[in-house]
Amino acid sequence: MSSKSVIPATVNPDLQKERDAASFSSEEFAAWWAGGADKLNFKRSVKEYMYKDIDRAEYAQLYYKSHEDMCEFAVKSSINVAKKLRQLQAERNPGGNEYWPTLFEEPEMWGLHLAGNPFGVMYVMVVKALKAQCTPEQYEEFGKRLERFEVTAAYAQTELGHGTYLRGLETRADFDRETDEFVLNTPTISSYKWWPGGLGHSSNYSLVMAQLYIDGQLKGPHLFYVQVREEDTFEPRPGVHIGEIGKKMGFLGVNNGFLGMKNVRIPRSRMMMRHAQVQRDGSYVKSPVDALAYFAMVSTRCIIARNAALLLAIGATIATRYSAVRRQSPIDPKLPEPQIIDHVTQQLKVFPEIATSLAHRLASNYLSDLFNVTTKDIDQGKYERLPELHALSCALKVISSTDSTEGIERLRLACGGHGYLASANLANLYASATAACTYEGENTVLLLQIGRFLMKSWRAAQSGAPLAPTASYLADVQRNPEFGTWTGSWENMVKAMQFAAANKTRIAFNSLAKRLANGESEEVASNHTGIEIAQAAELHSRAFVLYSFLSEITGPKSKARSSALNRVLEQLLELYLVNITLKNMSNILRVVHLTDADLCQLQARLETALSKLRPEAVSIVDGFDFCDEQLNSTLGSFDGNAYERIFDAALKAPMNQKSVPKSFHEHLGPFMKSNI
Amino acid sequence: MSSKSVIPATVNPDLQKERDAASFSSEEFAAWWAGGADKLNFKRSVKEYMYKDIDRAEYAQLYYKSHEDMCEFAVKSSINVAKKLRQLQAERNPGGNEYWPTLFEEPEMWGLHLAGNPFGVMYVMVVKALKAQCTPEQYEEFGKRLERFEVTAAYAQTELGHGTYLRGLETRADFDRETDEFVLNTPTISSYKWWPGGLGHSSNYSLVMAQLYIDGQLKGPHLFYVQVREEDTFEPRPGVHIGEIGKKMGFLGVNNGFLGMKNVRIPRSRMMMRHAQVQRDGSYVKSPVDALAYFAMVSTRCIIARNAALLLAIGATIATRYSAVRRQSPIDPKLPEPQIIDHVTQQLKVFPEIATSLAHRLASNYLSDLFNVTTKDIDQGKYERLPELHALSCALKVISSTDSTEGIERLRLACGGHGYLASANLANLYASATAACTYEGENTVLLLQIGRFLMKSWRAAQSGAPLAPTASYLADVQRNPEFGTWTGSWENMVKAMQFAAANKTRIAFNSLAKRLANGESEEVASNHTGIEIAQAAELHSRAFVLYSFLSEITGPKSKARSSALNRVLEQLLELYLVNITLKNMSNILRVVHLTDADLCQLQARLETALSKLRPEAVSIVDGFDFCDEQLNSTLGSFDGNAYERIFDAALKAPMNQKSVPKSFHEHLGPFMKSNI
Repeated sequence: MSSKSVIPATVNPDLQKERDAASFSSEEFAAWWAGGADKLNFKRSVKEYMYKDIDRAEYAQLYYKSHEDMCEFAVKSSINVAKKLRQLQAERNPGGNEYWPTLFEEPEMWGLHLAGNPFGVMYVMVVKALKAQCTPEQYEEFGKRLERFEVTAAYAQTELGHGTYLRGLETRADFDRETDEFVLNTPTISSYKWWPGGLGHSSNYSLVMAQLYIDGQLKGPHLFYVQVREEDTFEPRPGVHIGEIGKKMGFLGVNNGFLGMKNVRIPRSRMMMRHAQVQRDGSYVKSPVDALAYFAMVSTRCIIARNAALLLAIGATIATRYSAVRRQSPIDPKLPEPQIIDHVTQQLKVFPEIATSLAHRLASNYLSDLFNVTTKDIDQGKYERLPELHALSCALKVISSTDSTEGIERLRLACGGHGYLASANLANLYASATAACTYEGENTVLLLQIGRFLMKSWRAAQSGAPLAPTASYLADVQRNPEFGTWTGSWENMVKAMQFAAANKTRIAFNSLAKRLANGESEEVASNHTGIEIAQAAELHSRAFVLYSFLSEITGPKSKARSSALNRVLEQLLELYLVNITLKNMSNILRVVHLTDADLCQLQARLETALSKLRPEAVSIVDGFDFCDEQLNSTLGSFDGNAYERIFDAALKAPMNQKSVPKSFHEHLGPFMKSNI
Repeated sequence: MSSKSVIPATVNPDLQKERDAASFSSEEFAAWWAGGADKLNFKRSVKEYMYKDIDRAEYAQLYYKSHEDMCEFAVKSSINVAKKLRQLQAERNPGGNEYWPTLFEEPEMWGLHLAGNPFGVMYVMVVKALKAQCTPEQYEEFGKRLERFEVTAAYAQTELGHGTYLRGLETRADFDRETDEFVLNTPTISSYKWWPGGLGHSSNYSLVMAQLYIDGQLKGPHLFYVQVREEDTFEPRPGVHIGEIGKKMGFLGVNNGFLGMKNVRIPRSRMMMRHAQVQRDGSYVKSPVDALAYFAMVSTRCIIARNAALLLAIGATIATRYSAVRRQSPIDPKLPEPQIIDHVTQQLKVFPEIATSLAHRLASNYLSDLFNVTTKDIDQGKYERLPELHALSCALKVISSTDSTEGIERLRLACGGHGYLASANLANLYASATAACTYEGENTVLLLQIGRFLMKSWRAAQSGAPLAPTASYLADVQRNPEFGTWTGSWENMVKAMQFAAANKTRIAFNSLAKRLANGESEEVASNHTGIEIAQAAELHSRAFVLYSFLSEITGPKSKARSSALNRVLEQLLELYLVNITLKNMSNILRVVHLTDADLCQLQARLETALSKLRPEAVSIVDGFDFCDEQLNSTLGSFDGNAYERIFDAALKAPMNQKSVPKSFHEHLGPFMKSNI
């Protein structure tokens, strides 16, 4: 059978039928989701240009390759993306940056970086960090070369034995007054830099976070720009022990690396000197702007949340389309097997994830807006909202990474056995999504940080001090701890989550106070109360996402949308609110009186919401506007020819290119013969 | 640095300290866990023999290989295991079977089948199915050759377009009266057999489930024994289109395969004829024992549950040991960073999974005992407990696969970034565990089957008919719907879960009744009530696991254990009961009145249970008695030298065997140069 002929050129009729039946325009959805028709057209034209001539056959073989070949492939394909984006920039707007480097690591390119982008961190983190931390002269020397891609660089902070706790880092940079140099060392195995993306085999420079010592005196962690490989030969520099840390769940070709240093000397001018400085005579000038250090992370976490939402949206697109074309398990045995999307239990697996990707994407928009407002405040010297913004960005990062990970897994399981195939792409999406639970602040550590913010806010409220706007509900609940009547309105559900969060905050606060009264130190008491503090933080985070989702859907922005689109968005909001409320019911029931009839009604609303979304689901995910290359899934392509694509992919597997495997001749055949 | 010297020959002092401080003997635990000291010694001696001379370096390179090389490796290593087990059998007890084939696919061998065992299904399923379905003559001809490993065979049931619903299978076997043959065909792409383990490139026979047609009349699905490859050349037979389905999340080397057939003719004698028969004249004899068909699945599901429990126990061993040697995030900033096992939030991630693996393992023991009792009943023609046993086996399969999957993921996340490394082995354990959510009955499908059993039982109770023992609580709750006083005792918590299950059963039953009254058909109403039915089934399953765990720990078997061991097991039981009760609180609160003080007390008990298990945790997982090869984890080895092992593994990665990668010369170098 020729493999060319397997995939029909037509759309699966079951999928077409869904598209024809939707009550709204998926094009309007797509334009809204993209941030406007202009942006949608821009993205589409970029994708058309970038994907039109890729070697699909080579991409399809990716998961069959050895680890080494995957890494080599990632370097090659990422450089191709860089070349094409620069070409596009030159063609369409020379001197601008909206194509290059802006798009290099954006979701539109994901289908081209299937093994990860070894140079992603270079533009997303290193260049930005250099801009923020270099003097203008330093940026001219280091940053510009990276911008031009003359050299490559990684960002090395985490060590084999040290992650979250920056002050625990062991890598040290000693100032040598005589030679005007820093001497870098990783004195132990646990102090080896470990994990930086692209560090292993594709960087010749690295920003290195190290403990600064002057005359043996510790000045705390600072950033140094260290050459790790020769520019011409790419051989490791003297004293540098460098390589990659080995295979991982995901990011298969990113060559996350390790770095050991033994008396590696760099000129004094290679310490980032914009804020803190070491002068020629060894005198040390402390950075005046500690508060700003974590401000940069707020915008990073907005991006993480948006990406988590989009990974989930990709998963939801795949599972929704597959659910429309897969037929299985009769509802009525006298009829043909139904589309599995008709099973209510299947709807419960898939539709809430569509809603969740919306909720998180919109929450990241909401937070970005708040970030921009706060940036203006900071420019005017107002730092008041910084702790709140930090807590919110942690909250959204935790919730979006956790929910997208669990959601993608639910979606994979909703695709049954075929979801387990690499060609379904759900396992790889999962590996990408779950990494965000750990990087840029491990989720539990972040929850405890949010919790500290809540404990402070609760104490402040008790003393009548003003609270940050998004925490002010804590003071409201203190003033009036009675929830009042459960109405089940959307606002009422958001309020219920806030009451649950406030109640858990109160419980955690009291547990903490009791332990302090029993003589435990602040730190020990915080640890012992960690579970309740983290629970309060999670509920606070949920309340924020509910609130921002409600605002974005029912607020003034709704006026710009058609009523047909608003109706569908409101159905998604309804599903999300009811589902999250039910999932957190044990905490809500402690502060809100719901009768058994109220609970039954919520269940009925859940089922109604699912059935209302049933005819819209395919068109909603169409509105996410992912191209087939971004989905990279035999199960989820636009044409819905899932079986034919699974079949076609199998035929192309390397093992199937010969009829008898080597192992038969070498092992199995002789063994069976010996048994006769 | 020589890689030989990296790993110390000594045990990490942090781990040794834990072992010294435990209040009980991990050896006694190990003997109990293994089912007695004899069994423990047997397993240890087998493992010693099997693992002593394996090529560790080659195993360590597994995840770096290409897919094809992994498949080849799996065949080679599985044959080696078979050879050695047969040798051991010959040495220690010729003619017996306790080594070969009994141990071939058992957990003791898992460390040798790291890419999966392509011949596992052959002994776990095919030989057993042949025994059950063959006439004695057929077994002599087909089965014995498999026993001797002269030929290999797969079990082909699932199709590309058909899984759960057996009657939906499209593969057909038409009886040709003239030639006394069956003619097998897969008329469509969706009828291709898809997924059978070992079918792709390592089987020359296959049991094939196909719709039997005689004179064009459908007789339903039957099993046929089909030769798919030539014995001498291993080339596919005429009309057979065979290969592997491509890369998957896990079971990397098992060559799950596809099979298409075009007019493949087999003699009539190749239909399994023990129960149903087709005679020479084409007359058809129906099987008299339909009820027994699913009885075999009960014991398969006991094994799935046990394996799920053991996969989780492996994960718990890795995470517990790593939590004892990793130091991170100060509790008191004046002190050194603590072992992360001292963070209460970490304890909550790890210890409940230890308890869960116990609960599921013991539930599978409990069910096995029940299975054996029922087998005797069946021999005496008593089939009464069959539906109950079927429902329980579904329940345990669902709960154990779901919880072990989610638990392993929690444990992986508890290991932070390093948990993401392939060398940590948690991702691979996850891939193995999650597959069980789908195979041998997809979990949601099973929940709906359990739900049907519950609906029937509820109706029976209403009419006063007797219920199966493990469902009799439904009748109790109908008779006396008041829970009574919450005492928080263990028995009380089990009862609370039963009340929650009964309440959800009542709600689902009423929803169903209402829909029927509104004129919906039984099938449509069941679908519309699917969410509530599945919820009832899950709570029923949880109640069963709680009950069996309580029985096994506090029942008569406790007399055979020391009080020190019993104390630790009771702490695990306490943790499990409190944790599961809290997690299901929203359902419990609908039927049990707990005050806010009761809820706070449960939280306090949770924290107390964690702190009591803190000094015991390492010795408990030692008691699981996995050898390092079974754990296969740089993070979890017995010696606790995690960093050194991560480091050592990284140094051995293929990419690190040369200093400059190929891609620098071919792509990166020229590109950077062109940018200067």
